[in-house]
Amino acid sequence: MMAIPIAIVGVGKIARDQHLPTLAASNRWRLAGVVSRHADDLDVSAHPTLTALKAAVPELAAVSICTPPIGRTDVIREALELGLDVMVEKPPAATISEAERFASLARDAGRSLFLTWHSREASGVAPLSAWLNGRTINRVAIEWMEDVRVWHPGQEWIWEPGIGVFDPGINALSILTRLLGPVSMTGATLRFPANKASPIAASLAMEGGAGELVSAEFSFDQRGPQTWTMTLDTDGGQATLLDGGGRLEINGSPVDVPEGTEYGRLYDRFAELVGKGEIDADLAPFRLVTDAFLIGRREQVDAFSWSD
Amino acid sequence: MMAIPIAIVGVGKIARDQHLPTLAASNRWRLAGVVSRHADDLDVSAHPTLTALKAAVPELAAVSICTPPIGRTDVIREALELGLDVMVEKPPAATISEAERFASLARDAGRSLFLTWHSREASGVAPLSAWLNGRTINRVAIEWMEDVRVWHPGQEWIWEPGIGVFDPGINALSILTRLLGPVSMTGATLRFPANKASPIAASLAMEGGAGELVSAEFSFDQRGPQTWTMTLDTDGGQATLLDGGGRLEINGSPVDVPEGTEYGRLYDRFAELVGKGEIDADLAPFRLVTDAFLIGRREQVDAFSWSD
Repeated sequence: MMAIPIAIVGVGKIARDQHLPTLAASNRWRLAGVVSRHADDLDVSAHPTLTALKAAVPELAAVSICTPPIGRTDVIREALELGLDVMVEKPPAATISEAERFASLARDAGRSLFLTWHSREASGVAPLSAWLNGRTINRVAIEWMEDVRVWHPGQEWIWEPGIGVFDPGINALSILTRLLGPVSMTGATLRFPANKASPIAASLAMEGGAGELVSAEFSFDQRGPQTWTMTLDTDGGQATLLDGGGRLEINGSPVDVPEGTEYGRLYDRFAELVGKGEIDADLAPFRLVTDAFLIGRREQVDAFSWSD
Repeated sequence: MMAIPIAIVGVGKIARDQHLPTLAASNRWRLAGVVSRHADDLDVSAHPTLTALKAAVPELAAVSICTPPIGRTDVIREALELGLDVMVEKPPAATISEAERFASLARDAGRSLFLTWHSREASGVAPLSAWLNGRTINRVAIEWMEDVRVWHPGQEWIWEPGIGVFDPGINALSILTRLLGPVSMTGATLRFPANKASPIAASLAMEGGAGELVSAEFSFDQRGPQTWTMTLDTDGGQATLLDGGGRLEINGSPVDVPEGTEYGRLYDRFAELVGKGEIDADLAPFRLVTDAFLIGRREQVDAFSWSD
């Protein structure tokens, strides 16, 4: 198998933490360059634009978009015009209209597109999905509670009008929709700090396609232990995903989960999509977020401070 | 051509104002019954459920859903299980997740589905669309300003968390997306009365797929003349849709528009879809609404009173 030459656009925290190490360890991919003005320290050619990189590396075949989710349409269009297959970090765009468009642009260009949800590839998700087969889910309880001061220190953009605490919360929704299929938002309360334009916490009520009742608590203001947990009550016992999906317990006992990493599996999947010329552009998690904003009641809570 | 037997579910204001007269005047449709508890005055059989109606009228082939947009999944699923083709009044659902599901339910059932946007059938829209052919749109300005006290007198549900002033505004967005194709929301301000949970006004900035700049002003608090106007500046002059799309002016001069009504054309289109076994479930207008809620800045304005 020949490794596919791929570029990274946007060398920020997620690219350095996950994408670059994953590509370095992969035998299906070869990092052919980056588009970034903050990559002088990397041992790979950096260019100001994707078009410049493609001119320098004509064999470039794919690109992974790791820029912030605002304003990605231009770079995705540029990539498709250059004949590249495209993988996109979550959330796919600032708005659902924009995200919806990426798939039609890729279809028109005849290229592969992968709008990724990395938490769906967490080690416990596939074993849980297999265990759920033949069981009836009655109830799902999600707790996704973290401290924004730890995970986004000083990143003021997180408080721009937009998803706020749903930036981590959408990871839980991506796992939920993978496990249950169609899910509808039936009620939501969004809590906005008095001095901020995006929510710091949310309480959600949802319903699965088979009538499963789902509750979720999201927080960006969780001191002490951080919690990314999903508990499923079924007619065949209780399953609990822990650590954002990395660990799985069935009726309180740990279950073996596969080796490997979320991003390792994401890039394997992208290689499969490219091999088949397919598109995977599931927006179900994003739709649930926009629905929470549409029907959510809003509450004002204490002003937020990074130094509290 | 045999008239197709159709049922109306939900005999409220929109059914009485538009759907019943349209069906009465149509030679492609025959009203076979209604599902309603408020239809004793109608000269047609009324039943408590669609299943009961189908049992009484086995030749029933289609249904038009005119209930409020909350909780339609159950009746749509019931209709599809009864083998009926389904037409749905706007907006299609309370949430985009729910609306998205209707198309997959219809596909699975092998039935036709039509999620309608009646304003797209306003008399001026098709002539405008034809006039725009070959012209480049530079700028679109929308003013959709009406008095909620006149159009929804005392209807407190309009202030439940949800679309508020976007209930009329989505009509403008449905015309816009018909004329421009893909449109993205780039900025929004939503104005909430101090005592209400849905917006009474909104200012929107959007961008079309070819870079067209779009601005929109929506209001539910417009005294005096009511305004439903869309002005398009092109390289070949200016076009103005007036009266919600019913009238068209080119460079200030009125243009002849076709005879017929919005709902007459909607039901003609539904008959075509049924004849071909096709689905028309375009959610682009709804996506723009949820995007406005997601990225919109919120402002509090004066408390609302029905009697002001």
